[in-house]
Amino acid sequence: MKPLQPQAAAAFNFQIWTQFIESLQDKICKSLEDADGKARFHQDLWERAGGGGGRTRVIADGALLEKGGVNISTVGGEVTPAMRSLVGDKGSRWQACGLSMVLHPHNPFVPTFHANWRYFELYQDDGSIADAWFGGGMDLTPYYLFEEDARLFHTVLRDGLEPFGAGLYPKYKKACDAYFANHHREDEARGLGGVFYDHLRAGDEGLSLEQWYAFQQASAACFFENYLPIVYRRKDVGYTSAHKYWQEIRRGRYVEFNLIHDRGTLFGLRTNGRTESILMSLPPTVRFDYDYEPEPGSAEAKLMSVLRKPVDWV
Amino acid sequence: MKPLQPQAAAAFNFQIWTQFIESLQDKICKSLEDADGKARFHQDLWERAGGGGGRTRVIADGALLEKGGVNISTVGGEVTPAMRSLVGDKGSRWQACGLSMVLHPHNPFVPTFHANWRYFELYQDDGSIADAWFGGGMDLTPYYLFEEDARLFHTVLRDGLEPFGAGLYPKYKKACDAYFANHHREDEARGLGGVFYDHLRAGDEGLSLEQWYAFQQASAACFFENYLPIVYRRKDVGYTSAHKYWQEIRRGRYVEFNLIHDRGTLFGLRTNGRTESILMSLPPTVRFDYDYEPEPGSAEAKLMSVLRKPVDWV
Repeated sequence: MKPLQPQAAAAFNFQIWTQFIESLQDKICKSLEDADGKARFHQDLWERAGGGGGRTRVIADGALLEKGGVNISTVGGEVTPAMRSLVGDKGSRWQACGLSMVLHPHNPFVPTFHANWRYFELYQDDGSIADAWFGGGMDLTPYYLFEEDARLFHTVLRDGLEPFGAGLYPKYKKACDAYFANHHREDEARGLGGVFYDHLRAGDEGLSLEQWYAFQQASAACFFENYLPIVYRRKDVGYTSAHKYWQEIRRGRYVEFNLIHDRGTLFGLRTNGRTESILMSLPPTVRFDYDYEPEPGSAEAKLMSVLRKPVDWV
Repeated sequence: MKPLQPQAAAAFNFQIWTQFIESLQDKICKSLEDADGKARFHQDLWERAGGGGGRTRVIADGALLEKGGVNISTVGGEVTPAMRSLVGDKGSRWQACGLSMVLHPHNPFVPTFHANWRYFELYQDDGSIADAWFGGGMDLTPYYLFEEDARLFHTVLRDGLEPFGAGLYPKYKKACDAYFANHHREDEARGLGGVFYDHLRAGDEGLSLEQWYAFQQASAACFFENYLPIVYRRKDVGYTSAHKYWQEIRRGRYVEFNLIHDRGTLFGLRTNGRTESILMSLPPTVRFDYDYEPEPGSAEAKLMSVLRKPVDWV
């Protein structure tokens, strides 16, 4: 399928963003159903008591995907005292719309994928916009290291974001490595990283809000060029129960990160978010063994060595 | 085996407590190896950079226990600014010793068990004791509801703590229900509760420090009378893969509580605790399904109804 392309700068507003996000959800789900060939997404529409709602789409027991979610939510309300430290001192009401996705394939040779693209607006009492910013990113969590996959994933990101400034990919790659780390395990990385960014405002890096919107479109378009090709490369590779065991051990670390450290998960759970939509990110089957260590020199140990020291892949 | 009994008040100090805890660990591990009949505990001795260390004992792949840990730790150091809100304004150095245990049986008809007994001392610069208290408790997490097991578990606790004051069991039972709840799931209980208490100081409830020590001994003795008998009742009941599936779904809720809400787990991970000893509490195999709901009227739904509304079992 044709990937989304950065578009020329044009008037931007919240409605344009929600239309983009809804269309993106359709395209991503279609591409995944095509790759899976067996399972289809199930849709749950929901409303939030405090305002807004969402369109949760989940898939399970597919040929490719053991579990996955591609969710959009549009929520908002009054700025509460608890939110002040997060949103700054401007505005009395807020609204946000974003897409969050996590894919957990069956096959341990196909990496887990996570991405999020969001837009946040704060309003004055008179309804005018007080502040606005974009956030998001994507990262790859393999169970076995294929260096060519790591290079592809990062090269597409670097090339996709390059038109907006050569410094952006290195900066957001570094932020991603710093964020997706299990600090209670000596900063062991969740995976091979990607990009992670937040609070991208009009004027930052010399870009207008319209240009940041185009940046978000370019960021989202990377999914079709850096993750889907890896899926097609690896999805039919044979694997054993030992490979599956290791995948489930590593999925345990994914659970630890999401429930102990992930600000999005904890913020969602503490602000009356929809629990089942937030926790769709958790892997389907997981193992927690005491003090599990892979054999020295094994493929599993090779993965661990790059997780303990992030690598520049491009 | 003969359970521990409350003892007459006698001089109490930190060393007496550590000897009690070490002896308790031996007795509990012995009773579990007898019940298991196949697996033995593996011991890891460790030291903590900030001071102290521990004796972690774990068991896995037994006939009864799929995974279990009975750990003791004796740690201490300077009171850091971050600790002040937890320990009050007295003292400059601290020391604590406790036993923490979590048992995850294979058989979904045998409940998961958790307990903790600890003692905390704060010291002045001259080494004299500035403050001291006990904490702990135990709780039961079944996957299927047997009302006679719930009544036994709570009756033994009520009777065991009664000599120290008739009001203690009801108070600590209520505190347990309030604590072990998944607040992000409308306060759904982790299990059927038990007792939970903290900051038990000399003079509280009219009891001396020596009497609180006897209270802790009585509390620990309950394990042999309220959990072990349930193990022997249920460990040979046959079960299907559907029962196991449900156990793994509920174990997911156990993971959610421990990583999102449990203050002991989070405090340990944030204060340089030994990660593998702390996270031995996590179940061995776990499932996270999107929006899983048991069939109305099923045994699984019956359990859910008591988890959504705590019951007085005695």
